[in-house]
Amino acid sequence: MNLMIIGRKAQDAASVLALTETAKKREALLHIAGLLRKETKSILAANAADVAAAVEKKVKDSMIDRLRLTEARIDAMAVGLEQITELADPIGEKIAQWILPNGLRVRKVRVPFGVIGIIYESRPNVTVDAFGLCFMSGNAVILKGGSDAINSNIALGAILRKGLEDCGITPDAVCVIEDTARETTKELMRLNQFIDVLIPRGGANLIKTVLENSTIPVIETGTGNCHIYVDKKADLAKAIDIIINAKTQRMGVCNACESLVVHKDVEAKFLPMLAEALAPYHVEIRADEAAREIVPQFAEATEEDFGTEYLDAILSIKTVDSVEEAIEHINRYHTKHSDAIITKDCKAADLFLRAIDSACVYVNASTRFTDGFEFGFGAEIGISTQKLHARGPMGLAELTSYKYQIVGNGQVRS
Amino acid sequence: MNLMIIGRKAQDAASVLALTETAKKREALLHIAGLLRKETKSILAANAADVAAAVEKKVKDSMIDRLRLTEARIDAMAVGLEQITELADPIGEKIAQWILPNGLRVRKVRVPFGVIGIIYESRPNVTVDAFGLCFMSGNAVILKGGSDAINSNIALGAILRKGLEDCGITPDAVCVIEDTARETTKELMRLNQFIDVLIPRGGANLIKTVLENSTIPVIETGTGNCHIYVDKKADLAKAIDIIINAKTQRMGVCNACESLVVHKDVEAKFLPMLAEALAPYHVEIRADEAAREIVPQFAEATEEDFGTEYLDAILSIKTVDSVEEAIEHINRYHTKHSDAIITKDCKAADLFLRAIDSACVYVNASTRFTDGFEFGFGAEIGISTQKLHARGPMGLAELTSYKYQIVGNGQVRS
Repeated sequence: MNLMIIGRKAQDAASVLALTETAKKREALLHIAGLLRKETKSILAANAADVAAAVEKKVKDSMIDRLRLTEARIDAMAVGLEQITELADPIGEKIAQWILPNGLRVRKVRVPFGVIGIIYESRPNVTVDAFGLCFMSGNAVILKGGSDAINSNIALGAILRKGLEDCGITPDAVCVIEDTARETTKELMRLNQFIDVLIPRGGANLIKTVLENSTIPVIETGTGNCHIYVDKKADLAKAIDIIINAKTQRMGVCNACESLVVHKDVEAKFLPMLAEALAPYHVEIRADEAAREIVPQFAEATEEDFGTEYLDAILSIKTVDSVEEAIEHINRYHTKHSDAIITKDCKAADLFLRAIDSACVYVNASTRFTDGFEFGFGAEIGISTQKLHARGPMGLAELTSYKYQIVGNGQVRS
Repeated sequence: MNLMIIGRKAQDAASVLALTETAKKREALLHIAGLLRKETKSILAANAADVAAAVEKKVKDSMIDRLRLTEARIDAMAVGLEQITELADPIGEKIAQWILPNGLRVRKVRVPFGVIGIIYESRPNVTVDAFGLCFMSGNAVILKGGSDAINSNIALGAILRKGLEDCGITPDAVCVIEDTARETTKELMRLNQFIDVLIPRGGANLIKTVLENSTIPVIETGTGNCHIYVDKKADLAKAIDIIINAKTQRMGVCNACESLVVHKDVEAKFLPMLAEALAPYHVEIRADEAAREIVPQFAEATEEDFGTEYLDAILSIKTVDSVEEAIEHINRYHTKHSDAIITKDCKAADLFLRAIDSACVYVNASTRFTDGFEFGFGAEIGISTQKLHARGPMGLAELTSYKYQIVGNGQVRS
């Protein structure tokens, strides 16, 4: 189907969805959750075709794991939709209201974006998860998944559309793009007339491609070169606990710690403690010269190390003379995602909180808390690392815009 | 100077500005306002060179008028800066705060974007106006004006920088790009590493070019194909007053009315009233067939007319059978800027307010009120027609982002 036609249908569906009542949206999500469970067999059959093709192409095991659906994973998608129905509906919230001197009554009201485009890779669960969040926030969604998962996505998309239709809601509220050609994706990224915002979900390369090719506003998510600064007044035992958590609890996630900054006054005591504590986790440490003078077995860190999101069992270390130097270093090399200071000094903590230019800045806590569920949003479409629109974990409210409603009785401008 | 160097300097300046106190920002703006008045002669001399070059190039008179500075226009820039100092500083506002079950205290705090890029055309006053708004909201700004105004912009930029330096603030908080090559502008639009948001200010072509070439998040401003719908229950006399105001008070602005939608039940009475009322303003009316049957002297409207922002003494008319049809027509052809309904029917008004997908939706008032000053923001950098980040008139608060500050006592994620 032509993208222009899909765009127009999605836009028409969006104008209906914007006025759809909360109860009706919840009813549809619960019905679709049931359908997903009922259709487990047909979903698994479609997914088996994708997995077989990937095996044939000798795709890496880790990629095949992302692609593979199981009964448990399908149930998890259904549970995800059910959980969304428990969240407050952000649409219609009065954000502000005031009366102008000329008597005009102005209301600032939360509304859906309209049409959201999601471009993602090989995880088929994104098809259902992203639909659920976009739908509950009153948005139509156009889904463009990876070609690896095309059979799974088509099967899931058909269930979502059938479920909507069963509930008397236009199925065009969700559209899975079936054409996997690269040209189609490029065309999609320039469909400004119909798509209000584009959210890429995936690795750094996907996000870069979307940023470079899209003329539609993009929400950039994901990259996290997160730092922890151990201040001269740090509780060193707490620092160790927090670093072990932030570095090793899950290595491949964006809120994992990639780099330490250590104050020189504590390095002699702290670095050997750290080396010992991290040893069981097999984390390679790449450090600057001062740190290597204290722990000679640390590898040498290059300039490039400080700017790298490893997503792996590697940690870089930079030593500094002051909290100011730590802030300057972090603001130069981080990706504005999440950074933490470990200190008992209120003044240093306050300066760090204000001066570090990140979505989430922590005092005495693990960077791993940057997460929509941990923050209490009850959902997460991603973690924004840009400053336009939304920053940090994005829940339902971050999938909305606003408009002004102005009521008068004949006012004209003089 | 190399753009990378400018970007880095602006980013460094931004990290200082983010922590600069309100009083100090106000002091600097007042000082610069004084400097502008003091340097009127040198500014006029630089501007005279630009005007002479434009005359030589046989540029249109209307363009030269935009380019030309006078003592009064320079004073107006100074007054603009003084007015900004009277506004509340948005930076540091606590937007929300809560405590998580694990004891983490989360604060959502308003912060500057960081570095804002402004790309504009030949009005030199934008150099000062945009600087003032960006500076007061704690942002460093990189200004890329049109080549026509380069001498004026360089002179103004030097005064801004000197004024900042006089007050002990880094002059890199503002940078006027002196290189007028197109390639430089393209390079600027891809400086993601240093620029957080790009705001084009100018005509539709400029905005289109920036949208197509920028990899930095853009705030789209300006285009307004604004509609007024005259309902079957409209007060027709009020409708005429509002339409005359919205169409004729200023023809070339984005919140002017470009198209009428008229309910068939009132067309026979209303259209002749309208033709008579608009006659003194020499507005050409292009109407659909039903309207031309009533007033044969109306010209014929094509499909293209309904989608056109004339910015001129032309008005299109579409007749409809219902408020629903009016909404569908408007949502199809408008630019999501400002649209109004004229009606005494609360139900029709309510449906219109909810269903029209525009930044500003009016009941019984002129679309000309879509303006930061009219809304009481005390300032305006532009009117956003996109839904990401900010919609409608943008004041100081719309030039900010937020961050989360999270304070714990050793929490780790389990």
